Amino acid sequence: MPERIVIALGGNALQSKDSAPTAEAQLEVVKRTSEFIAEISQRGYEMAVVHGNGPQVGRIVLASETAKDVVPPMPFDVCGAMSQGYIGYHIQQALKYALNKRDRNYPVVSLTTQVVVDRRDPAFQTPTKPIGAFYTEEEARRLEREKGYTMKEDAGRGWRRVVPSPLPCRIVEIGAVRLLWDHAIVITCGGGGVPVVENPDGTLEGVAAVIDKDFAAELLAEAVEADALLILTEVEKVAIRFGQPDQRDLDHLSLAEAARYVREGHFGAGSMLPKVEAAMKFVRSNPGKKAIITSLDKALEALDGKTGTVVTFA
Amino acid sequence: MPERIVIALGGNALQSKDSAPTAEAQLEVVKRTSEFIAEISQRGYEMAVVHGNGPQVGRIVLASETAKDVVPPMPFDVCGAMSQGYIGYHIQQALKYALNKRDRNYPVVSLTTQVVVDRRDPAFQTPTKPIGAFYTEEEARRLEREKGYTMKEDAGRGWRRVVPSPLPCRIVEIGAVRLLWDHAIVITCGGGGVPVVENPDGTLEGVAAVIDKDFAAELLAEAVEADALLILTEVEKVAIRFGQPDQRDLDHLSLAEAARYVREGHFGAGSMLPKVEAAMKFVRSNPGKKAIITSLDKALEALDGKTGTVVTFA
Repeated sequence: MPERIVIALGGNALQSKDSAPTAEAQLEVVKRTSEFIAEISQRGYEMAVVHGNGPQVGRIVLASETAKDVVPPMPFDVCGAMSQGYIGYHIQQALKYALNKRDRNYPVVSLTTQVVVDRRDPAFQTPTKPIGAFYTEEEARRLEREKGYTMKEDAGRGWRRVVPSPLPCRIVEIGAVRLLWDHAIVITCGGGGVPVVENPDGTLEGVAAVIDKDFAAELLAEAVEADALLILTEVEKVAIRFGQPDQRDLDHLSLAEAARYVREGHFGAGSMLPKVEAAMKFVRSNPGKKAIITSLDKALEALDGKTGTVVTFA
Repeated sequence: MPERIVIALGGNALQSKDSAPTAEAQLEVVKRTSEFIAEISQRGYEMAVVHGNGPQVGRIVLASETAKDVVPPMPFDVCGAMSQGYIGYHIQQALKYALNKRDRNYPVVSLTTQVVVDRRDPAFQTPTKPIGAFYTEEEARRLEREKGYTMKEDAGRGWRRVVPSPLPCRIVEIGAVRLLWDHAIVITCGGGGVPVVENPDGTLEGVAAVIDKDFAAELLAEAVEADALLILTEVEKVAIRFGQPDQRDLDHLSLAEAARYVREGHFGAGSMLPKVEAAMKFVRSNPGKKAIITSLDKALEALDGKTGTVVTFA
């Protein structure tokens, strides 16, 4: 049986900090990223790919808000679905080519994916994720009144809408992911999935929220019984005392060690913390399996056990 | 064996002419549309759904162009992929609910889909499809110089970009569609597919073009060996002398009759003509099969042979 992995791609796999945030520049980065993913596929791993969408959905929202007098603005859930189409298109185009170059004729497909969140998730009480344009305080107050948005002052740069970041509960399209799994590379849960809540009558309804893509990837890895969750980011290894003179890179983290380092505040919220927490959740639910946190270019070596930070139950 | 059908959904299945062109209004129309599609599924048909995207991608382009000083404008192929995410999300959300109501637990999934067109297609010499904003002649000339766009004066309303409408040659993600076919309702080739050309080195490259969704549905129907191509539009039957006192609605069209009526100019370019031509192409390639042109609310009756216009080889 080939090993099954779920890959969570960080923002640096989609965009470079050094170039303009254009679709053309993104495609160039995605082409490089796809070479690494194709190489992993070439080794015989079965895989699904989960990508982030923060900067992309931010620009979609910003364009929509900027053009609001000409075109009716898009709700945030729709902006998320649009970003899945945008990023999925680039990955499947570039990855298919990278596979063909290796004589690996393998379907690559991205699915528009909804992820159910719980309306009672405490995150809905304290929205934290800023999205879209900056506003003056006056405009912000008006948006709060007229649209029910939660607006927050953002570090002296103006007021922005903030949305909650609830935990993912269920992947609506998991049936299709399972059908495709053995025969295709599936791009799914893009940007953590389009967040929906389940109404009492069974209808799903899009909500303005951001699901962390590492937690969505973790849920996916559980649902498809993946052997490993591979979280790719900018660094080769997780570190404690990161950026300090006595920084220590970690080859291995047990659940107990990881929990201690989390308590001690070693990992930045919104950067390394959700990755470590997603890895912990995966091995807690699957004590015989592993999660790996490493960089894109070291992914294959990490799968071979040569680098990266491996998180296991014990 | 259940009968396999490919359904091409017209613009009226996604939006009402009577309400604002918002995402919220679209979702309401899609919910009604999904009831009809769920009913067809309930009868045991296996199906894929191809939807149009003209007004939707138009608004995405317009928002992007309007916001161009704030957010880098999106290329047209990316706008198409975004519209697939947008519309696919609504259909899969609404259709899944309509199926669940009927105790039909069946996956619904939309795939970001690329469709290969031929760079040598004569359509590239004479772009005809207007997209995006209206410009003054001066702005139009500048866009021609700076971006290589083809701009045309549009009925006294200003200048607009026009893009070609080439024929679809190949569905890139057909492998995934085939994998899903027996087990899910697949939404694919949205808006006719994201148009791409194949470069000599094998890379695919997005192009600014619009593929007719009826022709894409026809290609899909051939590729999955569908038993019938079901083209849904605003009228129950195809008519000759449409809108005239002696209008005649047609129950049946043979290939020869259809060809004659096309020659005689009975069908409007950009409205009934591509539907009749797609139906003709399907039965020409599959002489034992049929294409049906009818309205959404009559689809089930038409599949039962009770209404609609049935197009067959002889």
